[in-house]
Amino acid sequence: MEEVQHAVREADPPQASTIAIPPAARPGDPIEAVDTPSLILDLDAFEDNLRTMQVLAERHGVALRPHAKAHKCPEIAIRQVALGASGICCQKVSEAVPFVAAGVRDVLISNEVIGAPKLALLARLARQAHMSVCVDNVRAVEALSSMMVEYEATVNVLVDIDVGQKRCGVQTPEEAVSLARLVQKLPNISFVGVQAYHGGLQHKRSLDQRQKAADKTVRAIRGYLDAFARAQIECPVVSGGGTGTAAFDVASQVYTEIQAGTYAFMDTDYAAIDWGDALAFRHSLYLLGTVMSTPTPERAVVDLGLKSTSAESGAPRIADHPDLRCVAVHDEHCILLAGSRRSRPEVGTQLRLIPGHCDPTFNLHDCIVAVRGQHVEALWPISARGLSR
Amino acid sequence: MEEVQHAVREADPPQASTIAIPPAARPGDPIEAVDTPSLILDLDAFEDNLRTMQVLAERHGVALRPHAKAHKCPEIAIRQVALGASGICCQKVSEAVPFVAAGVRDVLISNEVIGAPKLALLARLARQAHMSVCVDNVRAVEALSSMMVEYEATVNVLVDIDVGQKRCGVQTPEEAVSLARLVQKLPNISFVGVQAYHGGLQHKRSLDQRQKAADKTVRAIRGYLDAFARAQIECPVVSGGGTGTAAFDVASQVYTEIQAGTYAFMDTDYAAIDWGDALAFRHSLYLLGTVMSTPTPERAVVDLGLKSTSAESGAPRIADHPDLRCVAVHDEHCILLAGSRRSRPEVGTQLRLIPGHCDPTFNLHDCIVAVRGQHVEALWPISARGLSR
Ligand SMILES: Cc1ncc(COP(=O)(O)O)c(C=O)c1O
Ligand SMILES: Cc1ncc(COP(=O)(O)O)c(C=O)c1O
Repeated sequence: MEEVQHAVREADPPQASTIAIPPAARPGDPIEAVDTPSLILDLDAFEDNLRTMQVLAERHGVALRPHAKAHKCPEIAIRQVALGASGICCQKVSEAVPFVAAGVRDVLISNEVIGAPKLALLARLARQAHMSVCVDNVRAVEALSSMMVEYEATVNVLVDIDVGQKRCGVQTPEEAVSLARLVQKLPNISFVGVQAYHGGLQHKRSLDQRQKAADKTVRAIRGYLDAFARAQIECPVVSGGGTGTAAFDVASQVYTEIQAGTYAFMDTDYAAIDWGDALAFRHSLYLLGTVMSTPTPERAVVDLGLKSTSAESGAPRIADHPDLRCVAVHDEHCILLAGSRRSRPEVGTQLRLIPGHCDPTFNLHDCIVAVRGQHVEALWPISARGLSR
Repeated sequence: MEEVQHAVREADPPQASTIAIPPAARPGDPIEAVDTPSLILDLDAFEDNLRTMQVLAERHGVALRPHAKAHKCPEIAIRQVALGASGICCQKVSEAVPFVAAGVRDVLISNEVIGAPKLALLARLARQAHMSVCVDNVRAVEALSSMMVEYEATVNVLVDIDVGQKRCGVQTPEEAVSLARLVQKLPNISFVGVQAYHGGLQHKRSLDQRQKAADKTVRAIRGYLDAFARAQIECPVVSGGGTGTAAFDVASQVYTEIQAGTYAFMDTDYAAIDWGDALAFRHSLYLLGTVMSTPTPERAVVDLGLKSTSAESGAPRIADHPDLRCVAVHDEHCILLAGSRRSRPEVGTQLRLIPGHCDPTFNLHDCIVAVRGQHVEALWPISARGLSR
C-alpha cells in the first residue's frame, strides 16, 4: 500500500494551501451569526447552577468536587473552583492533563487505573497536583505503589465500594478493609477513604423513590464505615453522589464530598425526573442547529445528528417550539415533525436543541460557544475532548 | 466571572510545564503494547474490503465514490482513490477540507448546504478541487449560485430525490425537473444529475427483502429519469447506494456511482444482515480495551464506553470471546458478563470489541492505529473528526 499511496500523491500533488475553517463564532457576535452545529452555553443559567449547588453543599458543610467528565472544559472547572469547589473529579488520567495544566490543583480520578502507561502519566501528574485515585483490586494497588515509587510521587487512594451500581468496586466491607490495609502498608500511596457512587439511582423519576434508594445507599456505606471503625482504620473521605441525589447526599451525614457533574448544564434525561421544589437547575446547554431541508409541509431536517449530540438517552428536544418533535436522529441529521403546516420552520431557521445526555455530547465538540443574553461572550476549548485513556 | 477567574489564577498559577500525553502506540509495537481505549484497523481485512468493492463496481462499469463520512481519515481515502475510486463523498463542507488538503481532487457533498459560512467554504474548496453538492430547495439553489459567482468558483449540482428514506430530497419528479431547470438557468452551477440514497433499506436483514426494497427504489429513480427525459434534460449522474444494497445497486443499470462507506470496516449492525454468498466484507475495525475491574466472578469491566464507541445501534460485541457479553455501556465503561467463572478475563486483559455502528465511532477518535498481523504499522490521524459544519 505504501507504493500505491506514493503513486496517488505523484499524480495528484496536495495543494500548497490548506484552507482554514473559520471559527463557528467570534466574541460579540449575535447568536444568529453562530455557524451550526454548535454547542452553546447560556452563561446566566450556568452561573446560577454553579451557585445553587455550591450554596447547597456549603450549607451542609460538605465539599463539592464537581465531575469534569461532564464538560471536559478547563474554563468551566476554573469557574467551579473559583466559587468554592474543593477540586474536581476526572474519570480518566489523560482527561486530567488539561485541567492540571490550567491550574486545577486537586483532582480525584474517580475510577480504577490499570496499565503502566496510565500509571506513569498519573505519577507525572501527581508531581504537579494533589492526585487521588480509586482502587478495587490487590494487584492494581501493588502496581500503583511501584509506579509512584519509581517516579518519586505520592497519591491518595480511595477504595471504590459497589453500593448497588454493579459497575466497579469491592463487594464486601471485609474486602474493603483488607484493601485499605494493603494501601496503608505499601509506599508512596495513602489510604484516605472510600468512593461510593451509584449512577443507577440518579435518574429514578420519582422524588420519593430516589430518596428511598439514596437512603439505602447511605445504609450500605454505613456498613463499610462500621467495618473500618472496627478495624481501627481512619476513613476521613466519603466521596460520591450525583446531580439527581445531591439534595439527599449532602444531608446524609455520610458523604464528605459530592461529585455531581450535570447540575451545571442539565439535559433531557435529568429534566424528566421529579425535582420536587427543593432544588432547581436550569438548562444552560444547547445545540444550535439550522433547518437545512423542508421536503414536506410537516417535515423539517436539522443539520446535526449523532456526530453532534448523544442519542442513546433519547432524541434531543426542540427548545422554544412545543409543536416540533424530533422523530429520528441520523449521523448528521435530526428529522423533525411539526404538529401543523404553520409550525414547520423554513429552511435557514436556527433552532436550539436540548441534548439527551450532556457528558457524551460535550465529548463530540472541540469548543463551546459561551453566550450571555443574545450575544457570544467567548469560545471555550473543550480541551479534554477525546482524552479517554 | 472574569474577576473571579483572575483571583483563582493568582492564587493558583498554572504550572509552567504542561505534561504531554504519549501516543497510544508507535509503529513496530506489538498490539499488546497499544494503550487503551484505541481504535484499531486490521489492514489485511481493510485492504481486502477495498478490493472487493472496487472489483464489484468495475465489473459492472459503475463508479465507486466511497463515503468518507464513515471514516473521516484522509489516509483511508487516499487508498480508496489509489485503487480506482472516482472520488469521495462527504456529508459536510468542513469535513471535506482535510481530504482536499490531502490531495483528493473530486468530492461530492452528498447533502444540502445551507447558510453563507458553509457556502463560502464550499466556494473556496471549489477553487481547489472538483466539488459537487446536493439541492432540494429553490432558495438554496439561488444562494449557492450567488456565492459561487462571488468567489468566481463553479460547482456541479445534483438534485436530491427522496426515494423512500424520508430525510431530505424533493418528493416528486415535477419538483426535480423544475429545480434542475433553475440550476441550468443560474450562473456558476451546473446540473449533472440526481442523488438517490435510501439509508433505511441498507440494514434490512433478509437478503430477499433487501433486494425487493432496492428494486422498488430503482423503480422510483426510473420515474425521475423518465421525467427528465420528457423534459429533455440530460441527467448523466445517478449517485447513491450503500454497503447493504451495493450488490443490487451496481447491477441495477440505474446508478452510475455507488456511495458505500461501511464496506471498508463493517460493524455489528451490518454484520447482522444476511449477506447470502455473493458479497462478503470482513471486520477490519475494532476497539481495543482493557479489563480494569473484576468485582465478581462473572463481571468484568472494560475501560471504554460511550465516549469511545457509539451504542445507539447496540452494545459492542466482544471478538474472540463467545462466552463474554456486553450488558451495559456507560460513558467510560462497558460491563461484561461471562458465561462462567472460567471465561471471565482477569484485570489487565486486552480485549477487541466490534462497534455497533462505525461512522459515529470513528468520529470519537483522533487517530486510528493501523495494524498488520500482530504489529502496529502506522497511526493515521482522523483529521475530519468533529468537522460537522
Ligand atoms: C463516578 C461518578 N461520579 C459522579 C458522576 C456525576 O454524575 P452526574 O453527572 O449525574 O451529576 C458520575 C457520572 O456518571 C460518575 O460516574
Ligand atoms: C448519503 C449517503 N450515502 C452513502 C452512505 C453510506 O452508507 P454505508 O455506510 O451504509 O455504506 C450514507 C450513510 O449514511 C449516506 O448518508
